Amino acid sequence: MLITFEGIDGSGKSTQIEHLGRALKSASLPVSIFREPGGTPVSEKIRELLLHSATEIDPVTEILLFSAARSQLVAGRIMNLLKQGEIVLLDRFYDSTTAYQGFGRNSLQLNDIRHLNRIAAHNIVPDLTFYLRIGYEEAELRLGERVKDRMEGSGKEFYLKTILGFDEISEREERIVVLDATRPADEIHRAVVEKVREFGISV
Amino acid sequence: MLITFEGIDGSGKSTQIEHLGRALKSASLPVSIFREPGGTPVSEKIRELLLHSATEIDPVTEILLFSAARSQLVAGRIMNLLKQGEIVLLDRFYDSTTAYQGFGRNSLQLNDIRHLNRIAAHNIVPDLTFYLRIGYEEAELRLGERVKDRMEGSGKEFYLKTILGFDEISEREERIVVLDATRPADEIHRAVVEKVREFGISV
Repeated sequence: MLITFEGIDGSGKSTQIEHLGRALKSASLPVSIFREPGGTPVSEKIRELLLHSATEIDPVTEILLFSAARSQLVAGRIMNLLKQGEIVLLDRFYDSTTAYQGFGRNSLQLNDIRHLNRIAAHNIVPDLTFYLRIGYEEAELRLGERVKDRMEGSGKEFYLKTILGFDEISEREERIVVLDATRPADEIHRAVVEKVREFGISV
Repeated sequence: MLITFEGIDGSGKSTQIEHLGRALKSASLPVSIFREPGGTPVSEKIRELLLHSATEIDPVTEILLFSAARSQLVAGRIMNLLKQGEIVLLDRFYDSTTAYQGFGRNSLQLNDIRHLNRIAAHNIVPDLTFYLRIGYEEAELRLGERVKDRMEGSGKEFYLKTILGFDEISEREERIVVLDATRPADEIHRAVVEKVREFGISV
């Protein structure tokens, strides 16, 4: 089973993945956790290029690099783990590309992005996606004075369009569960676990 | 004007580009030369990943990385140079992706590759393409004992399918001029210059 977590930075994705991962392990269920972009040596090198490059990266190049990192993670790790019956938790997947690059940056037409997403994901689709919804100002407050990477430093307008993107994708895709990320982490965790149980996972 | 040179390694692309570049400069024409993947800091880092990576790269990841390097070169350099009226000579462009990854490796369906090529090239199309045609054995002989990079070490069957790919693309695309790469370099150069002159370039 493939479960992805989506939302802007500061929405609490990492916390929820950590909690769910711990719960699954406590129930003796095999679980693997990855963050995008990353998870393989090649993908980590691409991550480095994407988030800490000193030179300007063209918006289309950006999408292609995120897609390359994703393809390597799916082909090199996720597909095997799913075959072995593992539960895979992902901190971001292609919905982030659609929201950030498609809606946030308008880098390419949405149809081109969906086409690319399918290629990069080797046609796999998440069984379940949690979208942790939070407003821009609240996320900013949470992130505080932390040093921002290249994506995080893209400004308010970019983030507002990205949030709109996540909202629209969530309306279209039945696999996506929208959670109010401003609620206490424990409450959100209980909602996550409840949903996962609906898939026959005894967590 | 965008002129691309295609063919397998050992076909003499670099020699012909050098000769044409020199001829254009002698005629006081503004010319820029790039090799793919490469030509920008980001693209050179991707080149390093592609050709000298210690870990296995998935075939779809490979296409996406070549495409990312191309996108950065087109958006960061080529588009501006063409606008300024420069003649741009390219050592490989997307026909190589179609031939190597599409025909050679069968990584993706040809339609998906063409779609990706269009995205990565930001919709630009070469005005003229020279395909330097050479057989596998002859190219091998020319390359001799030179240390091979990851692409060059892919074996005979891969190269035979790649050559077939270049042949098929050449039949379909009118912009492609096929040249017998086994002829003396000077003769090929004269054929190249003659063709370039047809485009009103006084070289």
